[in-house]
Amino acid sequence: MISAAIVGGTGYTGIELIRLLSAHTEVSIDLLTSRSEAGTRADEIFPSLRGVSDLVFSDLDDKTLSTLQQCDVVFFATPHGVAMRQAEALTQAGVKVIDLAADFRLQSLSDFEHWYQQPHTCPDLLKTAVYGLPELNRDKLANASVVGNPGCYPTTAILGLKPIIELQNQQAIRLIEPRIVIDAKSGVSGAGRQASLALNYAETTDNFKAYGVTGHRHLPEIEQGIAQLLNSQFTHRVRFLPHLIPMIRGMFSSIHMELTEAGKDIDWQKEFEASYLSEAFVDVMPSGIYPDTRSVRASNRLRIAVHQDNERAELTALVVQDNLVKGAAGQAVQNMNIMFGLNETLGLNFAPIVP
Amino acid sequence: MISAAIVGGTGYTGIELIRLLSAHTEVSIDLLTSRSEAGTRADEIFPSLRGVSDLVFSDLDDKTLSTLQQCDVVFFATPHGVAMRQAEALTQAGVKVIDLAADFRLQSLSDFEHWYQQPHTCPDLLKTAVYGLPELNRDKLANASVVGNPGCYPTTAILGLKPIIELQNQQAIRLIEPRIVIDAKSGVSGAGRQASLALNYAETTDNFKAYGVTGHRHLPEIEQGIAQLLNSQFTHRVRFLPHLIPMIRGMFSSIHMELTEAGKDIDWQKEFEASYLSEAFVDVMPSGIYPDTRSVRASNRLRIAVHQDNERAELTALVVQDNLVKGAAGQAVQNMNIMFGLNETLGLNFAPIVP
Amino acid sequence: MISAAIVGGTGYTGIELIRLLSAHTEVSIDLLTSRSEAGTRADEIFPSLRGVSDLVFSDLDDKTLSTLQQCDVVFFATPHGVAMRQAEALTQAGVKVIDLAADFRLQSLSDFEHWYQQPHTCPDLLKTAVYGLPELNRDKLANASVVGNPGCYPTTAILGLKPIIELQNQQAIRLIEPRIVIDAKSGVSGAGRQASLALNYAETTDNFKAYGVTGHRHLPEIEQGIAQLLNSQFTHRVRFLPHLIPMIRGMFSSIHMELTEAGKDIDWQKEFEASYLSEAFVDVMPSGIYPDTRSVRASNRLRIAVHQDNERAELTALVVQDNLVKGAAGQAVQNMNIMFGLNETLGLNFAPIVP
Amino acid sequence: MISAAIVGGTGYTGIELIRLLSAHTEVSIDLLTSRSEAGTRADEIFPSLRGVSDLVFSDLDDKTLSTLQQCDVVFFATPHGVAMRQAEALTQAGVKVIDLAADFRLQSLSDFEHWYQQPHTCPDLLKTAVYGLPELNRDKLANASVVGNPGCYPTTAILGLKPIIELQNQQAIRLIEPRIVIDAKSGVSGAGRQASLALNYAETTDNFKAYGVTGHRHLPEIEQGIAQLLNSQFTHRVRFLPHLIPMIRGMFSSIHMELTEAGKDIDWQKEFEASYLSEAFVDVMPSGIYPDTRSVRASNRLRIAVHQDNERAELTALVVQDNLVKGAAGQAVQNMNIMFGLNETLGLNFAPIVP
Repeated sequence: MISAAIVGGTGYTGIELIRLLSAHTEVSIDLLTSRSEAGTRADEIFPSLRGVSDLVFSDLDDKTLSTLQQCDVVFFATPHGVAMRQAEALTQAGVKVIDLAADFRLQSLSDFEHWYQQPHTCPDLLKTAVYGLPELNRDKLANASVVGNPGCYPTTAILGLKPIIELQNQQAIRLIEPRIVIDAKSGVSGAGRQASLALNYAETTDNFKAYGVTGHRHLPEIEQGIAQLLNSQFTHRVRFLPHLIPMIRGMFSSIHMELTEAGKDIDWQKEFEASYLSEAFVDVMPSGIYPDTRSVRASNRLRIAVHQDNERAELTALVVQDNLVKGAAGQAVQNMNIMFGLNETLGLNFAPIVP
Repeated sequence: MISAAIVGGTGYTGIELIRLLSAHTEVSIDLLTSRSEAGTRADEIFPSLRGVSDLVFSDLDDKTLSTLQQCDVVFFATPHGVAMRQAEALTQAGVKVIDLAADFRLQSLSDFEHWYQQPHTCPDLLKTAVYGLPELNRDKLANASVVGNPGCYPTTAILGLKPIIELQNQQAIRLIEPRIVIDAKSGVSGAGRQASLALNYAETTDNFKAYGVTGHRHLPEIEQGIAQLLNSQFTHRVRFLPHLIPMIRGMFSSIHMELTEAGKDIDWQKEFEASYLSEAFVDVMPSGIYPDTRSVRASNRLRIAVHQDNERAELTALVVQDNLVKGAAGQAVQNMNIMFGLNETLGLNFAPIVP
Repeated sequence: MISAAIVGGTGYTGIELIRLLSAHTEVSIDLLTSRSEAGTRADEIFPSLRGVSDLVFSDLDDKTLSTLQQCDVVFFATPHGVAMRQAEALTQAGVKVIDLAADFRLQSLSDFEHWYQQPHTCPDLLKTAVYGLPELNRDKLANASVVGNPGCYPTTAILGLKPIIELQNQQAIRLIEPRIVIDAKSGVSGAGRQASLALNYAETTDNFKAYGVTGHRHLPEIEQGIAQLLNSQFTHRVRFLPHLIPMIRGMFSSIHMELTEAGKDIDWQKEFEASYLSEAFVDVMPSGIYPDTRSVRASNRLRIAVHQDNERAELTALVVQDNLVKGAAGQAVQNMNIMFGLNETLGLNFAPIVP
Repeated sequence: MISAAIVGGTGYTGIELIRLLSAHTEVSIDLLTSRSEAGTRADEIFPSLRGVSDLVFSDLDDKTLSTLQQCDVVFFATPHGVAMRQAEALTQAGVKVIDLAADFRLQSLSDFEHWYQQPHTCPDLLKTAVYGLPELNRDKLANASVVGNPGCYPTTAILGLKPIIELQNQQAIRLIEPRIVIDAKSGVSGAGRQASLALNYAETTDNFKAYGVTGHRHLPEIEQGIAQLLNSQFTHRVRFLPHLIPMIRGMFSSIHMELTEAGKDIDWQKEFEASYLSEAFVDVMPSGIYPDTRSVRASNRLRIAVHQDNERAELTALVVQDNLVKGAAGQAVQNMNIMFGLNETLGLNFAPIVP
């Protein structure tokens, strides 16, 4: 059994990790920490865990830190800036680290420091960290000791663009125009488990709005995905605008692109299907069928539909996922499976919840 | 024009008062106060008021207090315990006071102090205060200087029981058995405008629960309504259990009663219709038609359906209202209309919002 | 492997059965039928099943009927009146039948015919049918050939009353007064997967109402549960009133009882805990903790909280479940496990989905 | 008093018209028609109208048609294709016609027939019809006898683009690049009041999806708005993609544009504010403040926020409205006010409902 710890288990990604790992046949959660809830049983805070887990939150003190070093893997479901303070000691002790926050997502120090407004405490380790998007980094992940689990929006954006950028590289000609508009929408759980007037039910329900209009931290991550991860030979200008949907889970990204003449010659449905043929968790919808967020609710699947209109030179990719699963905890478990040589789908192969 | 002030205008009852009074042809809101938002325009906090009101929140300082004394009426949309500290000075200055909190609801000092955990600062004034339920206290309200605006649940409970208790008194015989079960449900706005994890969208949506299981502050108010307001000759034991509905506005009270043999001889549909024949804001639904909360959304109407089953000795009253209007701000305006000799429906005669 | 068939798989209980049985290690779904969708893949109607199931709906023709007879168990997720037409042929062929509709719930023919407005086509088989509430009928279920899966409301009502009625029988004295008020609330999925104006999103959302005010088909089933299933020595008069909650899944039953003097001497928390000590799917909440519906979302758990107030002679049981799982498909699988001698929790031991 | 009739009053725009016109001081609704509900009181179908309106639905028979001809104005809240069959007789009788469907929106016959799949029955009348967008056609509306009330999406799109296209014309140079992406989202009430599985609560709630991906009828209307209504000197290619938000009312359009070098020299906040300075129902939000749909709920206001990022050459306009008010019934009343020389805001100057 893999001995796992979850640091910061009181948020929505935390409880989702507990839910997934509790059902994972090859993992035991041996440690669960929380500053605010030290000494409390997890199922007191989350009654849904009654009968599922009898774990008790530990404080993140020295004793806990040394216990962490005896685990095989530590998941950080903490705010930005926590994992990077522990990662070095853990990796030196041979413990694998998966950070669900942003500490190891951006390769560029200046980008990290600009967008997260803090210095990075382990730049050397950052160089060795792997961006945890299995569909692109599977091989690197197999030997990774530190993994930066992708942001929820970038997961949809990068996987929605992958077949296009890759084919563009391969053909060495622009297939879409430089400007890409990503109009994205997320359920409220993405804002985290916190007391906040803006997240109050009566403020959020029967309401819809944009946020991060002037710039969102996931934009540089998407740009990095296109430039480095997908090694785009061509530059693209991305407009990324997130919105808040009055629903708990689910993310919907509408990616608007303009086809070049060369791009019109491609059968994009065929290309997308080919690109993800062997992927267990990426589902390309049949031509003419468009996804809704509930079709992936509480599952690790991400679904993509592509719509091509040569007359109007339009290419649209619609991408849905559960922001807490493929967009966070599920992808972290998928990364863990790869890092430990397990079947990538282990503990993740369950059906979405509909209705 | 009636010069009105609203103390504590940043909550949901506050903004509802601003909405209603801004459209009231006989009232001008001359002062709006808030400790937390002093100096801020109301429409900065509530963009829905852009173009409706250009009021700015004042702090509740001495200057404001003296300005308050020049108003005709002051509405307190504040937490419990605020109005009673200002009421004496205001009434002495000839200002009428309408408290939307609980300071002047309970006539019994010991009940108030037991349920609200604080001493009452003006017990003498409390003796003169009128319970602001127009359908029962219209005459007293006409000359009231201090009005305790009813709680939302008690409004539904007392109006749902009025025809029964009154007829029981009149016939001087029990028509229903002593035990009354009031299973009540409220939308989330009833919990107020506050940052709270329990009220976070992702905690509240697609979820339903009871609260106040061990006792709710509205119970003594309901009991007072039966005993004093309705002068019941017979004692009744009320079980009051509130629940939280995942919706913004609306309250639904299911009142379960058991008919005595004498009670079976009554045509309760007829009695309810007769009891509320002349009431503008109480609608008795036709026999066999049952109300839903949206049928009163954003309006001052309260609807009642009564179901009688002599075979099973069951009498059920179903009562709906908008907790923020008839259950709070609308009833306060209705009280104000009466206190100032205006047409009781002035500024309140608008249709519910459906869908 | 157990060979299972699902008749009528296009409703919400149907897709829930597909979801549960697809993950069940001892079952293979060998046949799925639907009159309306014959020839269509299940994952075309429910894209959430893409990658989960490649089943195709068959029409319920003679060929299918003969195939059914080669299965080990047939689940009927059909309207009332369908299962009873097939059950005799199936049981004669040695196939076990689990009906999720009402054909085999009520033992009394006259009750069935009064409430479901149709004659029963196999009264003899009805005599041998077992009411599929494992916590009460485990032994009978082990040898049952036809099981009537309980209604969702009766499941909460009967399990919420079980410890009380049983102790009352044991002590041979009334512990609660004869009248029981069950004020129940259900999510909209309970109304089924159908085109209906009343179920239109804009009609249902941000709205709350009662239904079945004059009588609901689950009432006789609850009364049967008390009288026959729990063999109550004392008669009880049940007022059952269901309401519709604007949420997808979940059921909340508030059971209001009045304690007798003898009933006040009981420690009901202790009694409830003892009564369900060995039950995997019934969770008695700790004293003072009250359940919400999301704490069982998409799981087979049912949670009960009991509140005792001797001063007011009140006993309240609050019961929550997922109406589609413990209230329907999950309980059906639990029954199947018992009928085939499997571990009762097999395929059902997953955590609720929160948030 | 203006004598008004509403043809087809059983839909959501119909009840909204009844709500608005019932409160309008210069209008009396003298006739209400419905094929399906002839003979029924409106408040039987919409209990929210109890005490508001005692109108009874008439069938659309010859008698009704002749009565229609005695009204001053007839509102058609009917499916596409109904108004054009009655309009000629009505206008000949001197009755003004306001169609809330699409019969008089598109000036191009071929566009109408392509997108609505039916021949137009009164092409000559169509030539004289005025597109009912007051902010652009106020003068023409003053003398119009037939008005095509705009679609909800086009209202947001055209008003969101107006200041840009107009300035571009004025300066005779491209300020934005040809390609415009309009990513729009609507509440479910926009789909109308109908029994539909796709609109079933359990299918729509906690879910988000795109629709009309391959082309939506509002696209040609938006293109017409840019080309004819705004007389754009420059061609623009519009990608219009609508989505369904799990909420009842409200529409949010995110308009993504790319600035040219000339466009970067413009202070767009200033231009938008100047453009709508005198408009009662168009509110340009202060710089840096972004709108949410609830800020216009149940009101006739439309709010726009503009975001300019010269570094990234991005111009974004965010537009919100209530799809049933400014997007339908409210705009129809605004048009009526203009057509009859009344104050444009009469009966429309009420505050949004928040929360």
